[in-house]
Amino acid sequence: MELVIGTKKWSTWSLRPWLALKRIGVPFKEIEVELRRGDATEADIAKHSPSKLAPALKDGDLVVWDSLAICEYLAEKFPEAKLWPEDPELRALARSAAAEMHSGFSSLRGECPMDLGLIKHADLSEATQKDVRKITERWNQLLKRSGGPFLLGEWSIADAFYTPVATRFRTYGVHLSDYGDTGAAGAYCERLLETPEFLAWEAGA
Amino acid sequence: MELVIGTKKWSTWSLRPWLALKRIGVPFKEIEVELRRGDATEADIAKHSPSKLAPALKDGDLVVWDSLAICEYLAEKFPEAKLWPEDPELRALARSAAAEMHSGFSSLRGECPMDLGLIKHADLSEATQKDVRKITERWNQLLKRSGGPFLLGEWSIADAFYTPVATRFRTYGVHLSDYGDTGAAGAYCERLLETPEFLAWEAGA
Repeated sequence: MELVIGTKKWSTWSLRPWLALKRIGVPFKEIEVELRRGDATEADIAKHSPSKLAPALKDGDLVVWDSLAICEYLAEKFPEAKLWPEDPELRALARSAAAEMHSGFSSLRGECPMDLGLIKHADLSEATQKDVRKITERWNQLLKRSGGPFLLGEWSIADAFYTPVATRFRTYGVHLSDYGDTGAAGAYCERLLETPEFLAWEAGA
Repeated sequence: MELVIGTKKWSTWSLRPWLALKRIGVPFKEIEVELRRGDATEADIAKHSPSKLAPALKDGDLVVWDSLAICEYLAEKFPEAKLWPEDPELRALARSAAAEMHSGFSSLRGECPMDLGLIKHADLSEATQKDVRKITERWNQLLKRSGGPFLLGEWSIADAFYTPVATRFRTYGVHLSDYGDTGAAGAYCERLLETPEFLAWEAGA
């Protein structure tokens, strides 16, 4: 298998399936394409995927694009890796949380792009503060439901989806205790940045 | 089961799992919340779902939020409805297409909101024209791969995700032949608006 990814320090979309692949432990080839070059970036990705978007997973003749679809594909192909929780209710909640991140929190995503290595104070807009409060509430609620240590118990695709968020909070100095956290969400946020899989990505960025 | 949805003429997110539920044919209770009232809308949805977002599916004590997570939940709960293609490769492509819609095509979504009943000429921005060309290309490519009549063969969740797009093309007078279509994408677009499930939604809007 080959995973086409964007520039590691920026590409939140690429980080997610990369973490899942590392978690599975299967060898894969990594093709890194430099982002933010407009048409040149699209042309480079188009050599691998009709979507012209990173990430894309190549498995033989099949090309799967989009971070969430790749994760679902991997969860089906490697059931022993348990990328989703085994319990159907926890799995439904994990998918809800991952999908909410996949399509939502646009203010946070626009205002606080992932930039590994950077530390920068940011005055967050009201809309982004609302996103942060919502994420803090969601994390606390799900950690309480599952008992942790990860969002729905053992590490799952939902955690892959929130790892880029954790890097944003670190980069822009966002303290969850300012957003209604009583401790669990902040500890979870740190945990996401300490997994061997994320540390390996960070080292490569 | 209960499905919390937003105003039918506007809510693209709600339409998708609603179509899947109708396709399954299982009875469900529908709770329609009026959108675009700011905090009042959020408060109404919060009575049902911690996400404060429509749609949300209530199944006993479980609340599943987000259109894609609900569809995945239904696909697992009702395997006989075959909401995803049975072939693993077609299923991976269906998930790629649905997920691409779930997180992407933001220019089209912002500029051409779904508004059933409205017919309005729109001069599309360059970014939206690019989205339309990309969707046309994607539809043609997948229809060729699957042989149709729907995007990946039989009707699937991918078609639920593109049905709101078809309504936008109709509302704003977008002719796919102007965007590189040689016929298949345009015919598919019409087919999406002729399913009994969509016609039932439209009648209720």
